[in-house]
Amino acid sequence: MDMQVIVNTIWVLVTAKLVFFMNLGFAMVESGFARVKNTVNILSKNFIVFAVATLGYLFLGWGLMFGDGNGFVGLKGLFFLLGADNSPATGDLYQGVYRALSWASVPLLAKFFFQLVFCGTAATIVSGAVAERIKYVSFIVFSFFMSMLIYPIVGHWVWGGGWLQQKGMLDFAGSTVVHSVGGWAALAGVLLLGPRFGKYDGDKINVIPGHNLSLATLGTFVLWFGWFGFNPGSTMTADPKAISHIAVTTNTAAASAIISSTITSWILLGKPDLGMTLNGCLAGLVVITAPCAFVSVEASIIIGLIAGMLVVFSVLFFDKLKIDDPVGALSVHLVNGVFGTISVGLFAKDNVGGISCSNGLFYGGGTKLLFTQIQGVLSVGIFVFLVSVLIWYILKHTIDIRVSLKEEIEGLDVGEHGNVAYPEFLTRKPVSYFLKKN
Amino acid sequence: MDMQVIVNTIWVLVTAKLVFFMNLGFAMVESGFARVKNTVNILSKNFIVFAVATLGYLFLGWGLMFGDGNGFVGLKGLFFLLGADNSPATGDLYQGVYRALSWASVPLLAKFFFQLVFCGTAATIVSGAVAERIKYVSFIVFSFFMSMLIYPIVGHWVWGGGWLQQKGMLDFAGSTVVHSVGGWAALAGVLLLGPRFGKYDGDKINVIPGHNLSLATLGTFVLWFGWFGFNPGSTMTADPKAISHIAVTTNTAAASAIISSTITSWILLGKPDLGMTLNGCLAGLVVITAPCAFVSVEASIIIGLIAGMLVVFSVLFFDKLKIDDPVGALSVHLVNGVFGTISVGLFAKDNVGGISCSNGLFYGGGTKLLFTQIQGVLSVGIFVFLVSVLIWYILKHTIDIRVSLKEEIEGLDVGEHGNVAYPEFLTRKPVSYFLKKN
Amino acid sequence: MDMQVIVNTIWVLVTAKLVFFMNLGFAMVESGFARVKNTVNILSKNFIVFAVATLGYLFLGWGLMFGDGNGFVGLKGLFFLLGADNSPATGDLYQGVYRALSWASVPLLAKFFFQLVFCGTAATIVSGAVAERIKYVSFIVFSFFMSMLIYPIVGHWVWGGGWLQQKGMLDFAGSTVVHSVGGWAALAGVLLLGPRFGKYDGDKINVIPGHNLSLATLGTFVLWFGWFGFNPGSTMTADPKAISHIAVTTNTAAASAIISSTITSWILLGKPDLGMTLNGCLAGLVVITAPCAFVSVEASIIIGLIAGMLVVFSVLFFDKLKIDDPVGALSVHLVNGVFGTISVGLFAKDNVGGISCSNGLFYGGGTKLLFTQIQGVLSVGIFVFLVSVLIWYILKHTIDIRVSLKEEIEGLDVGEHGNVAYPEFLTRKPVSYFLKKN
Repeated sequence: MDMQVIVNTIWVLVTAKLVFFMNLGFAMVESGFARVKNTVNILSKNFIVFAVATLGYLFLGWGLMFGDGNGFVGLKGLFFLLGADNSPATGDLYQGVYRALSWASVPLLAKFFFQLVFCGTAATIVSGAVAERIKYVSFIVFSFFMSMLIYPIVGHWVWGGGWLQQKGMLDFAGSTVVHSVGGWAALAGVLLLGPRFGKYDGDKINVIPGHNLSLATLGTFVLWFGWFGFNPGSTMTADPKAISHIAVTTNTAAASAIISSTITSWILLGKPDLGMTLNGCLAGLVVITAPCAFVSVEASIIIGLIAGMLVVFSVLFFDKLKIDDPVGALSVHLVNGVFGTISVGLFAKDNVGGISCSNGLFYGGGTKLLFTQIQGVLSVGIFVFLVSVLIWYILKHTIDIRVSLKEEIEGLDVGEHGNVAYPEFLTRKPVSYFLKKN
Repeated sequence: MDMQVIVNTIWVLVTAKLVFFMNLGFAMVESGFARVKNTVNILSKNFIVFAVATLGYLFLGWGLMFGDGNGFVGLKGLFFLLGADNSPATGDLYQGVYRALSWASVPLLAKFFFQLVFCGTAATIVSGAVAERIKYVSFIVFSFFMSMLIYPIVGHWVWGGGWLQQKGMLDFAGSTVVHSVGGWAALAGVLLLGPRFGKYDGDKINVIPGHNLSLATLGTFVLWFGWFGFNPGSTMTADPKAISHIAVTTNTAAASAIISSTITSWILLGKPDLGMTLNGCLAGLVVITAPCAFVSVEASIIIGLIAGMLVVFSVLFFDKLKIDDPVGALSVHLVNGVFGTISVGLFAKDNVGGISCSNGLFYGGGTKLLFTQIQGVLSVGIFVFLVSVLIWYILKHTIDIRVSLKEEIEGLDVGEHGNVAYPEFLTRKPVSYFLKKN
Repeated sequence: MDMQVIVNTIWVLVTAKLVFFMNLGFAMVESGFARVKNTVNILSKNFIVFAVATLGYLFLGWGLMFGDGNGFVGLKGLFFLLGADNSPATGDLYQGVYRALSWASVPLLAKFFFQLVFCGTAATIVSGAVAERIKYVSFIVFSFFMSMLIYPIVGHWVWGGGWLQQKGMLDFAGSTVVHSVGGWAALAGVLLLGPRFGKYDGDKINVIPGHNLSLATLGTFVLWFGWFGFNPGSTMTADPKAISHIAVTTNTAAASAIISSTITSWILLGKPDLGMTLNGCLAGLVVITAPCAFVSVEASIIIGLIAGMLVVFSVLFFDKLKIDDPVGALSVHLVNGVFGTISVGLFAKDNVGGISCSNGLFYGGGTKLLFTQIQGVLSVGIFVFLVSVLIWYILKHTIDIRVSLKEEIEGLDVGEHGNVAYPEFLTRKPVSYFLKKN
């Protein structure tokens, strides 16, 4: 047996398992940031979404993303991975229809499993932003389209041999492909859904605190842990220098963003708000996802510091616009997914992490890479946003996307699921202690 | 150093750690599905059980299971792994008394650690079914017998070179050896314990909702994650094709079962019940545990879909029989452990996952394998059930197995442990929102 | 690519990730053992501390610990890992300024990441002992000194080629370097802070029960899981025999300590207290951290049994002394860190786990190793305690280290963070059901 294939497969499967585990992280962060009465609904959405993604991506998504085709979409071996493939053969020895991943010397099903957990992440990001008012069945249907169509098509552009990959766009582990895609789809959903009842009262923004910051913290730790699969695993090869480098840049950006989001919230809100710190961490992880392999450890500090500030301002900004995102998913995944992708165009440095790439603006590469990155961000954004609006719109006018006002006030747990998350605990309307200067 | 031994040892240890982590999953699922007043007791049981299993399996269990002996039980190297062994030598080079695992090229203690975490899983399954009325000390004593005698003897039959292995029974990662064994022992305990006070009122079945569905969901995610150690790790060899295949069949069965249990509960109960969905996931994981290496990805979808329906009907069925299982452990581990083992006889296909095996009924193998599987299921079931009844019976008439009615009503936390799980939270008798058509 | 470097790097990174995950364990154990009103504060401390450690250890800590220097401290390549280094070259081929780790054939950043997560552990240990009254900003500042100065200097002595390493002190994974260092720093903090309001009332010791034993149990499982990275990973080499041996001794000591702490609390307190059992597990893990590679499985049982008793007596003893440690961190990390290090001098046996070492007293080595271990324990203890007292003292007289009495009574969550952990749940003053004989 080829030892290289063995170690690569171990690496790909172990990191894929960590990425799978991020589903728990999302479930805990999102339910922790929501109210008691909607907990079961959020848990259910975050639980079923990976099952939906598994079946959707297996059925068609994988084929659209990695099947040989044109610059826009895969066309061969579309369904159930049934196309020809002789992985783990690589390079000239590879014979099959999934050539975009023929550089990775692991079996086909290892490639599939690794890509599947990424697809699942993109789908689950939507869940938080649309929380506390979306109909369960509509979310399930949208998730099918997400994992079967939207994510795979964009993924084909950047990772499946499509037009953005050909142009040289760099998105190592998916600041754009995974996080901003989830973010744009979520934004479309939020706009068509409208804000939660009671969130905005004329110009007044009511704070609706999450019901369980222990779970939100737990979830953030799990996501941070899972990101050590997400980013270093995206090598799909056990390359010692690269995977060590990526582990460190990933962690450093998160750490910097934690510090800067804490300080920013301390200054803007008067106290170091835990929710902002948690979202700061996630912002740092999202932002470094594209550049993790292409930038130095020092650059990852700077990128993380910016991300931590950005997420705090962004949360306040979306609220100003009355775009109601209960968990801050847009600020974390969309805003920082976009910034992270662009930061590659600024900070990329050839071979700094053992992987060769174009240089960014700050390392003598001029604006070429920067403009490619911006083009990628915009193309992906426009496409995903428009298709998502279309799907949400159709759902709204067929099975409807929002629960009744009565159900929203009483809580989606009883209305949608007939369950109560904590039936023995006495609860009340939350009192907000959230502080704001002035 | 032999590189093959190194990569196999990495694989075995990493997957064993994931299986160990399933102890957390069981603790959270079971306490989440129980009431506030019994939370500390369930946590304590699920915590101490792995300590008990560690000492019991080290002392004697390992030797009975993997020591050279006859078809029924191991007889050499019984205590504290002190028999001769020159692992990681394999095949003809192996010299020692644990020949049943001489095919695995890893050190002896890696074999022991991997098998120990499986033993611990079988022991912890009992905990949920007997919850909310069993005496703490009786559970501890039973767990010692489970890990020292019952599990190892049956394990010897199927994995330790015993009579069922010689007949050709296939149970890759333990639908029978681990899950149904836990299930039969639990069934015996439930029958001798009787239902919880207030559960059945004449023909009326009272729903007793779990106190914390966030923890139950967390636990299920952890178990799903851990199963990526349980099944792919059971290769005990870093075989790229096999471990990739098993990861995908495992995940696909879980996903299918989630979807089918959600739909089934939606139809039968009127709403998509979260508890049923969580147990659906676990059912899909249990069911694929035996066949994961022997069936195609397509077959894993079908097997999972059936498991998800089966678990919902089974939960309702046990309640009809007034067999009170607070967490659904019998429906998950026993019913689906049995069905999963039998499904091998239907769906097995030689070399589909890189591992050679007999063909099942649907792939031209006739009924030979199917009958062997059924014989295995029945023999294991009868043996484990009878021995467990005997042990529970002796315990009942010596140290007693059930707490007093007063203690049961007041809760086992104070009575057994002198602790309260959430001393600052105000609680009440739970109001059930669980819906049933008609 | 050198296959040995590849497998070592996989091993080092995977185990480092598990150690990172222990941050979640500490956060859950500590917040679970504290009161509702201080939950956000504890979560915040445990969350930000790893960010602080990341930046502090990257900036200076790594260089002080592993830079070439004298017996007391590293002097070369101090800042930002910028010293010369040609890892993964080893032995005579190594050219660089971090020679103390030149035996490990992994890239520099893999070494850094692995050592960083250990540094983070030492820093986070302090958090629990000083909980429920420390000012957030003081804790952050102390953590910077801890990760930038205190931990690295002591680490240099034992692991960085310093004077204790030269004397032959054995501390495989850090009972002294990590756990007792955290413990001594915590003890200094506790003494300068004083006990919590209401804890001691003349001679009466009031029990202040933790608010959430589910989270505390969850956290302990996570720590146990993480320890399978902590101890076996400290080989920094995928040596099959050693890593298998260490996994088993680690687990066995934990199991034994769980049993003995449960029995001890049953005898002393009248019931098997869950908190004592959880701390018993952690005590067993801490105690085996130094000897895990140097002692037999049988010895690990004995060492664990002692640790489990020790932790119960120690908790009661510190309370007698009115040293208020809300989570038992001193009993777990300090007392058992010290005993674990000393146990090496008693039980060490050359090559028992595949690693050569001096023999301890019980294996014919006389008292030489034992005295070296005691010397190490004392030197580290005196140094860390004095430096910590100095830093806490300076902080006390500048930015202050304790919140106001009013804030302490109302809870640090609102006072320090403007957050409430569970804003919708109704709570009360806790009623203690904790039992004590007589």
